[in-house]
Order: sequence, then C-alpha cells, then structure tokens
Amino acid sequence: MTAYARLTARFARIATIGEAASMLSWDAAAMMPSGGGAARGDQLAVLAGLAHGLLTDPATADDLAAAFAGDDAWQHANLALMRHAHTRATAIPADLVEAQARANSSCEKVWREARRASDFAAVAPQLTEVVGLVREQAAALAPALGLSEYDALMDGYQRGIGAADVAPVFAAYSTFLHTALPLAESIQAAKSAPIRPRGPFAPDVQEALCRRLSEAAGLEPSHSRLDRSTHPFCGGTATDVRITTRYNQHDFSQSLMGVMHETGHALYERGLPAAYARQPVGEAAGMAAHESQSLIMEMQACRSDAYLSWLGPLLLQSFGGDPDTYAGDNLARLWRRVERGFIRVDADEMTYPAHVILRFRLEQALVSGDLLVADLPGAWNDGMRDLLGITPPDDARGCLQDIHWYDGAVGYFPSYTLGAMAAAQLMAAARREVTGLDAGLAEGDLAPLRHWLRTKVHSQGSLLGFNELLRAATGKPLDPSDFEAHLTTRYLV
Amino acid sequence: MTAYARLTARFARIATIGEAASMLSWDAAAMMPSGGGAARGDQLAVLAGLAHGLLTDPATADDLAAAFAGDDAWQHANLALMRHAHTRATAIPADLVEAQARANSSCEKVWREARRASDFAAVAPQLTEVVGLVREQAAALAPALGLSEYDALMDGYQRGIGAADVAPVFAAYSTFLHTALPLAESIQAAKSAPIRPRGPFAPDVQEALCRRLSEAAGLEPSHSRLDRSTHPFCGGTATDVRITTRYNQHDFSQSLMGVMHETGHALYERGLPAAYARQPVGEAAGMAAHESQSLIMEMQACRSDAYLSWLGPLLLQSFGGDPDTYAGDNLARLWRRVERGFIRVDADEMTYPAHVILRFRLEQALVSGDLLVADLPGAWNDGMRDLLGITPPDDARGCLQDIHWYDGAVGYFPSYTLGAMAAAQLMAAARREVTGLDAGLAEGDLAPLRHWLRTKVHSQGSLLGFNELLRAATGKPLDPSDFEAHLTTRYLV
Repeated sequence: MTAYARLTARFARIATIGEAASMLSWDAAAMMPSGGGAARGDQLAVLAGLAHGLLTDPATADDLAAAFAGDDAWQHANLALMRHAHTRATAIPADLVEAQARANSSCEKVWREARRASDFAAVAPQLTEVVGLVREQAAALAPALGLSEYDALMDGYQRGIGAADVAPVFAAYSTFLHTALPLAESIQAAKSAPIRPRGPFAPDVQEALCRRLSEAAGLEPSHSRLDRSTHPFCGGTATDVRITTRYNQHDFSQSLMGVMHETGHALYERGLPAAYARQPVGEAAGMAAHESQSLIMEMQACRSDAYLSWLGPLLLQSFGGDPDTYAGDNLARLWRRVERGFIRVDADEMTYPAHVILRFRLEQALVSGDLLVADLPGAWNDGMRDLLGITPPDDARGCLQDIHWYDGAVGYFPSYTLGAMAAAQLMAAARREVTGLDAGLAEGDLAPLRHWLRTKVHSQGSLLGFNELLRAATGKPLDPSDFEAHLTTRYLV
Repeated sequence: MTAYARLTARFARIATIGEAASMLSWDAAAMMPSGGGAARGDQLAVLAGLAHGLLTDPATADDLAAAFAGDDAWQHANLALMRHAHTRATAIPADLVEAQARANSSCEKVWREARRASDFAAVAPQLTEVVGLVREQAAALAPALGLSEYDALMDGYQRGIGAADVAPVFAAYSTFLHTALPLAESIQAAKSAPIRPRGPFAPDVQEALCRRLSEAAGLEPSHSRLDRSTHPFCGGTATDVRITTRYNQHDFSQSLMGVMHETGHALYERGLPAAYARQPVGEAAGMAAHESQSLIMEMQACRSDAYLSWLGPLLLQSFGGDPDTYAGDNLARLWRRVERGFIRVDADEMTYPAHVILRFRLEQALVSGDLLVADLPGAWNDGMRDLLGITPPDDARGCLQDIHWYDGAVGYFPSYTLGAMAAAQLMAAARREVTGLDAGLAEGDLAPLRHWLRTKVHSQGSLLGFNELLRAATGKPLDPSDFEAHLTTRYLV
C-alpha cells in the first residue's frame, strides 16, 4: 500500500466520523429532547477528539511527507488539501484547542443572556477572553500557512481568498451602495405598496408546499429530509442531506424562501463528486462557495420574475384568499423590498453586504488589536451610521445580535457576501450559456440551472480554489459588477 | 492517575462512542431516507471499530492487569465487568470478527428474500456459513470465559445464566403447558367471544394516546421520544431514550401495548444509576433483565384487570364507538386470548415460551453439531408438533420467521422467556411489598410499581447477576412458579 493510499483510507475514516457527528448535530437541533443535551455534547466532543487524533497522528505526518499523488489533477489537489488540513490541525497546540473550546462554550452561554438583556458589559469579559484566544490561534496558524493572521482565520472557512481580495470588492460595494440605496428607496416609494397575504397559514400546509418546491427543485426525498428547527440549516451528509426550517403562521415567505435557500446548499452536497466522497478534494469548495449555491437558488432563481409568476398560482392553491395577493408583481414588491434595518439576518439583498462589511472591518481590527472589545459597541454604531445611516437603539440590535464572535468564529462573515456576489456572477454566466433558463423558471423548472451548476460547481468539489472555480465557470475571478448589475436591474430601473 | 481511573475514563469513552452509534441506529430505523443506508453502514462500522480498538488496546490490558478497585462493591463489580468485556473482545481473532460481520450481513439479505418466498434451501448455504462461524466464535469464547460453548454465546446477551439454569425451568414449563393449554382453551371457549372495536383508528389519534399513556407511566418527554419504525424498539441513551412503534389502522392494541412494552424498556434505561453512567456496572443487567422490565409493564401491569378498567374509558374517549367494546372484561377477553399459532412475535403469553423452548433446543443442537442446517426445517416442525401440537404449513411460518440466527444471533432467544418469568416473579414480590399497587393501576397510576422497580432493579445497574438481582428483589433466584401462578390466575380459573 502506498503512502497516498494509506492517506486516502485515513481521511475517509476521518470523514466518516465527521458524518456521524454531522448527523448527531442535526439530531440535536431537530429531534433531541432537551434532557439529551449534556450527553450529546460529550458524544460530539469524543468524535471530534477521535477525528483530530487520526489527523494529527505521527503516522499521518510520515505518510504526508512520503506521499506522491502522481499526475492526476484530482489526486494532486487531494494530497495538497490533506497537507493543508494537517498543517491547520497541528499548528495549534492542544491546550489552545481545549482553552478555545471551553471559552467559546462559556461565552456563548453568557451571550444568550446578555443579548436578551441587551447588556454588552455582561459578556465583555468572556468576549475579551475569546478574542484573545482567537488572536493566539491566528498567531499560531499564520506562519504555518504562510498567511496573515486574519487571512489564516478566513482560510478556515473559505480557502484561497484573503482580506486583500475582499477589501477592494467591499470598498467598491460601499461606494455603489452610497448612491444605489437612496435611489432604490425612492423608486420603491413611488410604487404602490404590496398587498400582504392574510394568515394564519397552517404550518402543515406550509411544510407540504416547502417539500413540493424543494423536490421540484431537484432535491430527492430518497436522499434528504426536511424538518423543523429553531435556526434553519443544511446538515447531514452527501447521500442523506438534512435541511430544516421554521414556520411563522403569519408569514409563509420565511419558510418558503428559507427552504429554497437550504435546498441550494443541499443540491451542492448532492452534486459533489461521488468518486471523491470522503476525500478532502470531494468536499464543497468552502463557505463562500456554499453560500453562492444557496443564494443562487433563493435570491437569483426563486425571487426572479419568472419563478414568482409560476409560484403565485401554487400559493393561491395552497393558502387560498385574494388572488391579487399572489400575482407575480405583488410577490415581487413583497419579497424584494429594500429597507435599512439593524438585523443582518433580516436584511434584504442590497443592504445585507453593508452588515457584512461592518463586521469584516471590525473583526480585522479585533484581530490586529486596533480595536478593544470594550470599544466594540461604539465602533459598531459608528459603522452602521457610516454604511446605512442608522444607529442601533441598543446593543441587542447592534453588536450583540450575531452568535459568531461570541462562539469564536472570526473570519466567517465575508463568506456571506462573497457568496451573494458569486451567485450573481454564476447566474449571469448561466443565463449566457443556458438557453431557456428563464423560460424554465417561468414553469418552475430549475433543471436547466441545476444541471449547469452541477457541471460547473458541484461536481468540481474542492479541485479549484474559490476564484479559480469562478474563473472556470464564468471566465473571470470574483467580480462584484455582476452583483451590482443584478441589483440595478432588480431595484434601480 | 491510577490504573482503575484510567480504565473508567477509557470505558466512558467507549460507552460514549456506543451512544453515538445507538443514536445513528435509531435514526436509520426511524428517520433516515433510504439513500442514506450505505453511508450509515460505514459510519456504524467505523464507530464499532474505534470502540473495539479502545477496548482491545494493549494499554487496556496493562491497566486491567494492574488495576485495583478497592473494597467498594460497585467499583469491584465494575472492574470485573471491564475484565469480562475485555476477555470477550480479545478472545475472538480479528479475522473471525470480520468474517462474521460479512457472513451475517450477506445471510441476512438472502434471508429476507428466502422468507418472502418461503424457500429455506435458498438461504441454507448462507446459514450454514453463519452457523459455522458462530461455532468458531463459541469455541474461541468458551475457554476464555470458562463456560461451555453454548453458554459462552448466551453470556453475550445475559451474563450469569446458562443452559444448566435454563433447561430445567423450560422442561418444567413444557410439562405445565401440556395440561394448562388445553384447559385454558376450553375455559376460553366457554366464555362469550369478545367484541372487536370497529376501526379504522387514525394513526395520529393512536399516537397521541400512546404518548399520553407512556408519559403517564413515567417516561418524561424531556428525556425521550416516540417515533415510528417498521419494527418497534427502544434505543437511544439513558438521558435520551428513543422508543418506536407502528400503527395498524384496524387494531390499536398493537401500538398501545407495544408502546407500553417499549416504555418498560425505556424506564429501565432512565432509572440506571447515574453515578455509574457510561461504566459497565451502570448498564442494564442483560437482555433477560431488560425483557423483564418491558413485560412487567406490558403483560403484568397494563393487561391487568385493574389497568384495563382504567384504560377502557380513555379508549372510548379517544376512538368513540360502542361503549361495551371498551368495558374492562371485554378488553380482557380481547387482549388475553390464548391461541396456538406459528409466529413467535404474535404469540400470547402462555404459548410464547413454547416458541422459545423450541429455539433453545434447536440452537443448542446447531452449536453442538448434533443438528445440521439442512435438517432444521424438519426438526422445527417436529418441535412445533411436540410443543404446541401444530405443524407449520411452510417454512416462512416455521424456521424462516425470525431474523436472529440468520444474523448470527445464537443464544438470545431464552432471554425472552426468562424475562417473562422474571416479570411475574417481580410482580408477585411487588404486590407483596407495595400496598395499593393494584388500586394504583385501577387509576392508571404506575408510580408505586415504577418506584419499587427503580429501587430493586433499575438503580442496581449491573451490580448483580441475573439470579442475584432476582434474589435481592424477590428473595429467590429465577423460579418459574410465579409465572405459572400468574397464568393460572389469568387463564385457568
């Protein structure tokens, strides 16, 4: 057995442990009774420890040093990704891993209460510790990866792209937004207000419709489940994808669009190259790449005029009521509204990047030490005024709103907006290359888009980096102009 | 850290991996889409391999050789059980473990088709291989455990009891049955026939009632779930028990009594000593002990006159219809019918042991080599004539009906009847010791029985062997006379 063959077996084992953990995490969110929480934490910790042990085992290092993947591009990339994963895992001392796990878990608990009470001071000491440990983590990773400290953190979520790639893209978007947002608002104000569908809408009826739409989009019931959880997500494994949503009796758009978002994630997992299942090169290309697939489904396809014109009659059939409510142009006015708000997860697609840009700026400053935790609420509110011209009335609607930093996740936020931009870029390319794409959407047929994505994105796994994937699919690396063109067409004319 | 402390940490890790596997098995039966099956098999195999690796690691043997548990009875028993588990795991060569896993899995697949077609010859070669490997397994285990070959197999399901304990008990029961069964049949024939409730009974209504009854019996929703699966079972972990059932639209008694059966199992898991969670001594005392808890709930408590008199009005309220159908004496005639049948899982409590006695005889002969697989159908039918006076019309209703042997499980069957007998023995003791036990049942109150079982059985974990547990709880080791007295009271007067 060659060193490379031993490594593929070992990484398959690691991935299989990861699959078990992924299922248990889904269960914890969607099924588990509250009394099972403590034991579940132990189960996940033991599985994580076993996977970490296999990855950092000296035998892995020996095989990585000796392995030769040959000329095959996939095997070559696979070996490089194995080395990358091993470097990340061994760069951080075991006591730092443990200290972070403890600090993140303890901070996250305090944060829940602090957010409820809108009391930043209550969690500031815990956040200070978490940020301090994140800085240690970044300092340990940076030299091992040959990256800056912030980029070493970003690398944990989306390989192959760093602050130097992101900063100019975000700066350009800020400039665009500065004129686009007031213009979009005035155009919107000049139109008639949308009619809101009158509920309540029974969760079971919403769920049946969500299932139907998700299946129509190509997610096979034989390889997936749709369940309920407090926070919607896509989990599970490539042959058994688990998506969740929640149902608001007064607004079915949340579950509907949420499920199409998760369906986009799920289709990516379903389309990954089976020949490299459980190998690093067979995984999705990163968080930004993943978000591009959820957003191309939710924002580009399902909120398009064509799809809404098909969806309207289905909604009428499911929920009944005033037919005018379900006319395509009314749905467009309802579900494509621009609004300056405080909360990222509620933001529309035009203002959403402003929330991300704010966090990108602030988390870089936290990592560099230019911003102290104590100064975070002020810096946050200054940034909101700068970017959106509004001031959060309290920290619950400001720097306490997102779990990420309080759980030690620094460097994740850019992925959301990189994904949104990549989605627009991919959709523009698909429209050029696939004839009848919008005609298909007008009949609820997502197959033409899905097949194009399967070829260009899903089946590529992690063979290419984020920008290389976009270049191969669209002819250019990440370029925010397609996103701006999309917003211009949708909101500014 | 002492050797004993290292061992408790290691066994806790092994048990935690087992918890993860238990949850994934539950998911496979109750939740998983069909397309997830192959990956789930891999996940369970990897987890089993990791647990086996920890148990058979040379460091475990070193610590077991050096460990001293002190005078504490629990720690003493715990260490003995660790040694026992280690002995079992190391006695069987790795290539035999693998050969059995492969042969069992392949035989079980062929068996499903063979049972459907009632074609024993189609699966005889696979069963011959499985039995051959079981004999190798028994030959490897026996000297390591100091047990006979068959007892070494039984030990894997119920420690501390062997064929020499079981054989006289089963022989006495055969004698009892010889006169009791015709008598019960004639008494039954002299009574008026029961009125059958007229369905269909909506599964959702059945499920709601099952939930209510299970919760009323003491199973907390904060630590349990009730779901649906093809084959009802109790899985999960002590703080997160998962029970399942299936719903027959034409007969709610199957789900109702099935759920109370699984609730009995679940309450045992919930009542295990938390101080020894994830340690061998903190586990249930074996399969026969477990079955005693499901059957004391289903057969002893829930089919008692007292409980049925309370249940009737609830059934009427849930399902409506003719009130006479739900009178306690009608329910008793319905749900306590004696009938000679071919199928073990459909058998009543009086004839059920005959099915087990048949299998006990045959599997001993298969292990000793006195019975060849080719001769199994004939021996089976002879045994059925001898024990119940009936001849199976085909092998599907004969020696093909149960999965156990075809999946390599030999030595399990006696546990069912040992459990039934232990349930009667425990119930008789509880009736002596707990005042108002039947008065409680007549109000649907299972708390007096549950508290007694918690003290005498659940909280004892694996501190005592099967017979010692019974002796401590009832004043004597396993004694079938309580079971016979129970049947006499219920069917022969």
